Amino acid sequence: MSTSYSFQGWLGLDPSSVKGNMKWQGYEPKTWEETDVDIKVTHCGICGSDLHTLRSGWAPTSYPCCVGHEVVGTAVKVGSKAERGIKVGDRVGVGAQSSSCLKPDCEECASGMENHCMHIVGTYNGKYGDGSKSYGGYSDYCRAPSHFVLKIPDAIPSEEAAPMLCGGITVFAPLKKNGCGPGKRVGIIGVGGLGHFGILYAKALGADSVTAISRSAAKKEDAMKIGADKYIATNDDKDWATHHARSLDLIVSTVSSPNMPLEQYLMLLRTNGAFIQVGAPEDSLPGFNAFSLIAKGCKIGGSAIGAPHEIEEMLELTAKKGVKPWIEKRPMKDANKVVIDMNDGKARYRYVLVNEAHA
Amino acid sequence: MSTSYSFQGWLGLDPSSVKGNMKWQGYEPKTWEETDVDIKVTHCGICGSDLHTLRSGWAPTSYPCCVGHEVVGTAVKVGSKAERGIKVGDRVGVGAQSSSCLKPDCEECASGMENHCMHIVGTYNGKYGDGSKSYGGYSDYCRAPSHFVLKIPDAIPSEEAAPMLCGGITVFAPLKKNGCGPGKRVGIIGVGGLGHFGILYAKALGADSVTAISRSAAKKEDAMKIGADKYIATNDDKDWATHHARSLDLIVSTVSSPNMPLEQYLMLLRTNGAFIQVGAPEDSLPGFNAFSLIAKGCKIGGSAIGAPHEIEEMLELTAKKGVKPWIEKRPMKDANKVVIDMNDGKARYRYVLVNEAHA
Repeated sequence: MSTSYSFQGWLGLDPSSVKGNMKWQGYEPKTWEETDVDIKVTHCGICGSDLHTLRSGWAPTSYPCCVGHEVVGTAVKVGSKAERGIKVGDRVGVGAQSSSCLKPDCEECASGMENHCMHIVGTYNGKYGDGSKSYGGYSDYCRAPSHFVLKIPDAIPSEEAAPMLCGGITVFAPLKKNGCGPGKRVGIIGVGGLGHFGILYAKALGADSVTAISRSAAKKEDAMKIGADKYIATNDDKDWATHHARSLDLIVSTVSSPNMPLEQYLMLLRTNGAFIQVGAPEDSLPGFNAFSLIAKGCKIGGSAIGAPHEIEEMLELTAKKGVKPWIEKRPMKDANKVVIDMNDGKARYRYVLVNEAHA
Repeated sequence: MSTSYSFQGWLGLDPSSVKGNMKWQGYEPKTWEETDVDIKVTHCGICGSDLHTLRSGWAPTSYPCCVGHEVVGTAVKVGSKAERGIKVGDRVGVGAQSSSCLKPDCEECASGMENHCMHIVGTYNGKYGDGSKSYGGYSDYCRAPSHFVLKIPDAIPSEEAAPMLCGGITVFAPLKKNGCGPGKRVGIIGVGGLGHFGILYAKALGADSVTAISRSAAKKEDAMKIGADKYIATNDDKDWATHHARSLDLIVSTVSSPNMPLEQYLMLLRTNGAFIQVGAPEDSLPGFNAFSLIAKGCKIGGSAIGAPHEIEEMLELTAKKGVKPWIEKRPMKDANKVVIDMNDGKARYRYVLVNEAHA
């Protein structure tokens, strides 16, 4: 089965690429396997991880690198062994993970925790078993193993589905796993790309109340419109932790500054509460007094994206409840400009590149 | 109902009491209520908390203070409104907690988490609602509200039951709550009073394997006799965290040094694993990289003693499985000497004071 298309995309060639210096070039996709799907990209969300990776922020990046792991488009080639019944012409998406070992003796893969498999391959900047590289969705076409390629429900527009595939699932998964639902009071720290999804999904899951927590009051109006019931601006009330002590059952922290007031956040928790960190700081979190956890039987946890079955569950809930993310569509051709705007914190709350030739 | 006995015990009068300077004196017990039980003390375990409290280590102690919250004896007076069907002559015990609000609108009390009620009163160094003080079990008699007084199953000797009431439950509760059982690999950090109970109860709960973790190899032989399957001496292998990476589902840390190698402990956890701190350091725990939690979806938690229904469950399991703690009986009259020995780390692994006039 030959292809009538070639793979081209916005490639980062060095750390300066994060400053609007990506180049539109061809590249060699992963070696085709009969479990793969080729996606003609129509939309790709811009995630903070793209910026970390372009600038080699977490670790040295394997340049050339085509970032973008909130990819939606049309299946144009489907391997004979593809999973999930995907057919040519289907509207599909792929998130931050494109591969894991999937071996039956892998505890993670066998138990629906593929996102924690030790052999995870990212949708970009990753290396498959044969040495070929993964390239993301700031591109014309994207090739990915079908286990991680999901059909998008009809009710969800492509530009809205795209940012859910990393930004959405990163907060949906820990909310769901930690019991967000009726009877629960949930806090979301940070009102950004992830945080706005946190508010949306905490409400969609039926939490009794959702409190948005941010440093300044600048995003209060937005947060309330997105669906928050309460708002804490930590800069505006030096006793915020005391005033709101024991008011939350579950907190999801989307911020990635290591200088967070962790002990004060823990004061907000009720007995048996959980604080889940999903933002990934480049440095260590601060130390804390063990009594903060012991006295109330609380936990601090971490969570990374989600497994395919969790993404499917999120998309179903999104369709059923009519969850509407706040996004801004930008042309794929302007990707360099959009990356700069994202870096400047201008997104309200997610940029989605639109590949106008395919959309 | 008058009493034919008076309340006397070993009283700490100032921080020097921890150096073997407690005085045997009379004291005024809590104001009698018809929900109370008076216990003629036969046995009392010596807990690390007793030493922290005698020396005002956690906070200023309200002297005079009679410590001891692993109390077993005979019910000699039972209020007309006592709970649990306790009768005069029953062999009963009381642990670290003697009171909470027990109000139906208290989320903690109403849901079987009395140990996390904000109105908890300790069995010693506490103050009841009317201002009267709580006094512990280094004594002849101990008065406690019946909700926290439990019958001791016939199969468990008093000297063995006593140290379970704080030391045992402090590790049993988090083991049980965090899924210790068949299929789980459990680590216990610290082989002391708490840690030895950790090994015993992890085995009794059916864990696949129990790994004892200590700085030196000094307690290896004991740990294996107590029931550990593996032993890690962190001083003897500088790469211990790498060598044993991802080998444990659940770790209970009984040590209270704030200088613990927390990130290395987290390396030992498998995906979805939990690290539960029960030792209570007087200073902050070290900072750690959030990736340690995010990459594997792990959690750091804390746990404090246990609720009465959990203590009952522990005692049932103890009787059923024949759990035998390692204890050393010491005469109540030698309490000052025993406190010094405990402070010097000589306990193997729990001292139990025997009130020979009553036993």
